[in-house]
Amino acid sequence: MKRFLLLSLLMGLCLGAALPLAAEEGMWTFDNLPMKEMQSQYGFTPSSEWLQHVQFAAVRISDGCSGVFVSGDGLILTNRHCVEGCIAQISSPKDDYTQLGFRAQTGDGEVRCPEMEVDQLTDTRDVTAEVQGSIKGLSGERYFAALRNISGKLEDACSDGEAATWSCQVVDLYNGGRYSLYKYHRYQDVRLVFTPESAIANFGGDPDNFNFPRYSLDVAMLRAYERGKPVHGEYLQLASRAPRDGELVFTAGNPGATQRRETVAELKCLRDDYLVPSLAYYAELRGILEQFATEGPQQQRMAYANLASVENLLKEDQGRLEALQDQPEFDRKSAEEAALRDWVLNDPARRAQYGDPWSAITVAEQKYHAIAPRLRLLEQGWGFESRLFDYARMLLRGEEERSKASGRRLREFRDSNLPQVEQALFSNVPVSGDYEELMLAWSLTKLRAALGADDPLVKKILGKSSPAQVARDAVEGTRLDSPAFRRRLWEDSGFMDQTYDPMLRLAQLVDKDARAVRKTYEEEVQAEIDTQSELIARARFARDGTGIYPDATFTLRLSYGQVRGWDEQGQPVAAFTDIAGLFDRATGSAPFMLPPSWLVAKPRLDLKMPLNFVTTNDIAGGNSGSPVIDRDGKLVGLVFDGNIHSLGGDFWYDGRDNRAVALDMPALLDALLKVYAMNGLAGELTATKTN
Amino acid sequence: MKRFLLLSLLMGLCLGAALPLAAEEGMWTFDNLPMKEMQSQYGFTPSSEWLQHVQFAAVRISDGCSGVFVSGDGLILTNRHCVEGCIAQISSPKDDYTQLGFRAQTGDGEVRCPEMEVDQLTDTRDVTAEVQGSIKGLSGERYFAALRNISGKLEDACSDGEAATWSCQVVDLYNGGRYSLYKYHRYQDVRLVFTPESAIANFGGDPDNFNFPRYSLDVAMLRAYERGKPVHGEYLQLASRAPRDGELVFTAGNPGATQRRETVAELKCLRDDYLVPSLAYYAELRGILEQFATEGPQQQRMAYANLASVENLLKEDQGRLEALQDQPEFDRKSAEEAALRDWVLNDPARRAQYGDPWSAITVAEQKYHAIAPRLRLLEQGWGFESRLFDYARMLLRGEEERSKASGRRLREFRDSNLPQVEQALFSNVPVSGDYEELMLAWSLTKLRAALGADDPLVKKILGKSSPAQVARDAVEGTRLDSPAFRRRLWEDSGFMDQTYDPMLRLAQLVDKDARAVRKTYEEEVQAEIDTQSELIARARFARDGTGIYPDATFTLRLSYGQVRGWDEQGQPVAAFTDIAGLFDRATGSAPFMLPPSWLVAKPRLDLKMPLNFVTTNDIAGGNSGSPVIDRDGKLVGLVFDGNIHSLGGDFWYDGRDNRAVALDMPALLDALLKVYAMNGLAGELTATKTN
Repeated sequence: MKRFLLLSLLMGLCLGAALPLAAEEGMWTFDNLPMKEMQSQYGFTPSSEWLQHVQFAAVRISDGCSGVFVSGDGLILTNRHCVEGCIAQISSPKDDYTQLGFRAQTGDGEVRCPEMEVDQLTDTRDVTAEVQGSIKGLSGERYFAALRNISGKLEDACSDGEAATWSCQVVDLYNGGRYSLYKYHRYQDVRLVFTPESAIANFGGDPDNFNFPRYSLDVAMLRAYERGKPVHGEYLQLASRAPRDGELVFTAGNPGATQRRETVAELKCLRDDYLVPSLAYYAELRGILEQFATEGPQQQRMAYANLASVENLLKEDQGRLEALQDQPEFDRKSAEEAALRDWVLNDPARRAQYGDPWSAITVAEQKYHAIAPRLRLLEQGWGFESRLFDYARMLLRGEEERSKASGRRLREFRDSNLPQVEQALFSNVPVSGDYEELMLAWSLTKLRAALGADDPLVKKILGKSSPAQVARDAVEGTRLDSPAFRRRLWEDSGFMDQTYDPMLRLAQLVDKDARAVRKTYEEEVQAEIDTQSELIARARFARDGTGIYPDATFTLRLSYGQVRGWDEQGQPVAAFTDIAGLFDRATGSAPFMLPPSWLVAKPRLDLKMPLNFVTTNDIAGGNSGSPVIDRDGKLVGLVFDGNIHSLGGDFWYDGRDNRAVALDMPALLDALLKVYAMNGLAGELTATKTN
Repeated sequence: MKRFLLLSLLMGLCLGAALPLAAEEGMWTFDNLPMKEMQSQYGFTPSSEWLQHVQFAAVRISDGCSGVFVSGDGLILTNRHCVEGCIAQISSPKDDYTQLGFRAQTGDGEVRCPEMEVDQLTDTRDVTAEVQGSIKGLSGERYFAALRNISGKLEDACSDGEAATWSCQVVDLYNGGRYSLYKYHRYQDVRLVFTPESAIANFGGDPDNFNFPRYSLDVAMLRAYERGKPVHGEYLQLASRAPRDGELVFTAGNPGATQRRETVAELKCLRDDYLVPSLAYYAELRGILEQFATEGPQQQRMAYANLASVENLLKEDQGRLEALQDQPEFDRKSAEEAALRDWVLNDPARRAQYGDPWSAITVAEQKYHAIAPRLRLLEQGWGFESRLFDYARMLLRGEEERSKASGRRLREFRDSNLPQVEQALFSNVPVSGDYEELMLAWSLTKLRAALGADDPLVKKILGKSSPAQVARDAVEGTRLDSPAFRRRLWEDSGFMDQTYDPMLRLAQLVDKDARAVRKTYEEEVQAEIDTQSELIARARFARDGTGIYPDATFTLRLSYGQVRGWDEQGQPVAAFTDIAGLFDRATGSAPFMLPPSWLVAKPRLDLKMPLNFVTTNDIAGGNSGSPVIDRDGKLVGLVFDGNIHSLGGDFWYDGRDNRAVALDMPALLDALLKVYAMNGLAGELTATKTN
């Protein structure tokens, strides 16, 4: 849930003006592809059958990844790093899959991921007229309420009482230039089938993350079930070959959020009010988790999934910060913005039509600056790093929100979103009290440090106690670790009223302030940026036409590109690595330690076989697990990372060095057969297509 | 030593153009005070006797603080946070002073601080002609060599073979506009006399650091000895009263480094290439230390001093970053720079005379950007967080450097600086192997993360081992924890040649690369910025005259100001806190837990007595421990902090909210008498002056 909230915030901040396209730039919606450019560059354009086939095979993993169906029996290919949470949740001291990985030889051995949801996009519908009709001329609170209301209505009508099966979402594309209703088939019974050992999936660990040359088998397989049976439908076939250098390839996936249309003021705000504090916060958390993990095998297991995602987040923050410190790019962006601004402001008619949205956004960002610490701490989880606290807040707010009409609720409690909330509440995920206490106590010290010991809310929460005492009392006294208890609280409001629970009490203490700062943000910052960004977008459409792609919105996009290395400070970086390089790089020490399975299998492996490769495809966070597809619609690779330059891709695409990093499919098949003896699974992946 | 290196780097980066003065702005050298302004504002100017008296009473504590003689028997008053390192070093599992503090009732009980040096400024001499004559027209390597050579000669002649007693330093003031030779009486036998408990000295801890209202007794007393006897000399008498609201007060201390004359390019470089990486690095280190400290009382003691200084550093970084993100101030600075730049560049004669130093500095900063990570990691300690590694490097480099003429050595090995190196090497400071391993292993992972696993130096250091293995081998195998072993290596180069030690070996592996990046920095960045900044300074002198103060250089400065609160977002903040407020704020939980001594003494204390107060004096890091002095030259307070706005003081002074935070002297006397029963010490402090 945290990851999704994070994406949401960035999306809220990321609206603005478009730049001219670079070759191969773009995360395109399936209904607006740059056919001309593809044709002239590669002499190829995908057919509508090709596109439909790919659309139905591609899936979104709801906590922030992509994936693809690879068999007619619901088998889904994605990255191991996309299922680390699941692995940690189904592991126990007795069955610890975090290091050894997971392999189900038969369907009976497949284990359900308690909190996973996979969504398959079945339909999109243009709802621009309905939405714009509802919000026209409104601003602030009224704008926000109207947008929430019409979105809720459209989504509820779309899922039509079957929210458990259909997930619907109004998506704002082109900064309010277009609204689209996305309808997904929702799968919540998703079971883990296969992951390799952590040592090979995360080979190179943090030092190699976002780097290339790279040697990793960052792969996982899931299976979608419905009514207890594997689902059947469209899927991509594996190509039986490695991709070729220079070959045209596509990726289909769900980039989470980009800020390419944002104004300079918004990027500065992102840098100063988001990325810098995030760096400090997560760097300290990383230190805590690193040291905690050394205290014993139990602690290592508890810290495992969180540490990996914190490390990833930190590297992303650092890459983004470096990009935003890159003066030439920033200057270019500023100059382009100034040109459009002059085009509007120096012409009285245009000025009357569009106003001065740039100044208005700057003012909104100043408001954001003033509330940003409270927003992060109270509403985005920084002050209360605890799963049990999250449960408490969900229950508390769910109680209050569900008494309202769906369209008037906080977004996450709309009818169409309740299945996700309920899945989280009712799932049996093991909770470690020690770990909860550690995290909650630490984050409460951050709350006090940021707001100050004299802040009235801090005084209300801590009183004369220390953060550690407050955390201990709440964690030790709560019963929210019981799914049955949570379910009863959710379903029986009378029970809720007569229950005292210290964690619920803590959430209650905070809720008024947390809701207030969220309301200020949504109505005074987000609504203002939304409406002003729409004006910029319209001015840009008027000046430049409409042949552009929208900023990423964690919805399905297609990108085209080619397999190609790059020049790193004058040194060529080849497009491929091979299995031999993997063994060369191994040191015997983590994170460069090969698992025994690979050491034993070495004589059987083809050392010259490609392992990982890079492409010029334009991707972003959320594209993890995206298929790399050839002209024939066959799967030739699986995206699992970008190189370090791809992090600047949040703000601009530079085809000279921005690269997606992918796993080669023949290497995957070889590993299944020769390392893991997963012959059945390999057979399923290579079965001739019949449907 | 780390702290001093840090100051050095910032000083190297901090050169540029002056801004118009705000009232009370300025850290003035004693020979160039704003007498007119003081006279017109307060109707008072200090006499030359007043100034000489204060100069001889004030001292510099060599690892980055200030202090003041307060008795005729060498008693020095400073802050407890300035002696935390000493407290940790003289503590053991048996005698742990870190929490309980230290109190010597008699001279016999005073304990020597193994690594402390206190310097008393006795003389300054203008050497501008000598220095400028030597470097005129030179640049890059030749400039740097010539500057090093003349500085070495002047310093060695000044200490005249008695470097153990006289510490001499050529100080660059006004960006090369003036060079001055500072001569200090050096005291290396400095003994701890008194500190209160950590709980009261650091009351409020990290949340209250850089905050006000504040309630703290951040005080320590030392005594300087020479040939085994307390030294006798000038000192300041305590005023027997609290300061008055609005009263004129002075501070005399050693602000470490400010960047008020830097160009915009330099401030951006400071922000992006120094402060942001520093925030990430120290935040993670903080997390490690916080968690490590929870693992047991031993670990808590080991982490103690480091954790406090890391927390302080982080808050400074954050405050500076926020100041540099403050758009109006930055815009004002940019506009002022542009005006001077236009004044030079738009006039052919001036252009011929001064060139375009702003562009040249921007180019130098781009070079810095490219080498900054290596410089930090290899030369400034980030890659090798280990006292044993520091010893190894000192020994290794000392061996090589001492074979050269003094003026050709690395600065820290000039004859005039050797006493500090030898004090560090020969002192018996307890070293914990576990802690060394933890820190070295962690920092080696940072080295690998930043340079990448494919970097040749990283490969040379790690080979096929993990950072933890390399750290373990070096720490467990070294004998450098023995002062006798270190002394023998230092004094007997034959012994050095025939000794194999794994930590020395590690330092050797790194040294070529470390020296190379330092050389590039000094000759291509620092030398260029030095020479170009001098041109900007000369242009500014030509346009505006010379009534300005130089940027801080960790040398003695006087500032004037008044006792005064401020308005915080419309709310007045009073200038004083009192003892009653201290008891109100106490919660019973750290960092708001009062020690038992204070709880017991409460009935005896005057609750209305002022405890801490704020003044408008212009201070910076390094001013910790500075006396606050009234018109009569009496001590009315002791600076121990600045408020959060004072952190922007590195770049500009804003008298509206920039405040120094000080301890009231009557409160100190009351504590000595009524809480600690240190009647002898209180008597020494209040003795009538006789010398």
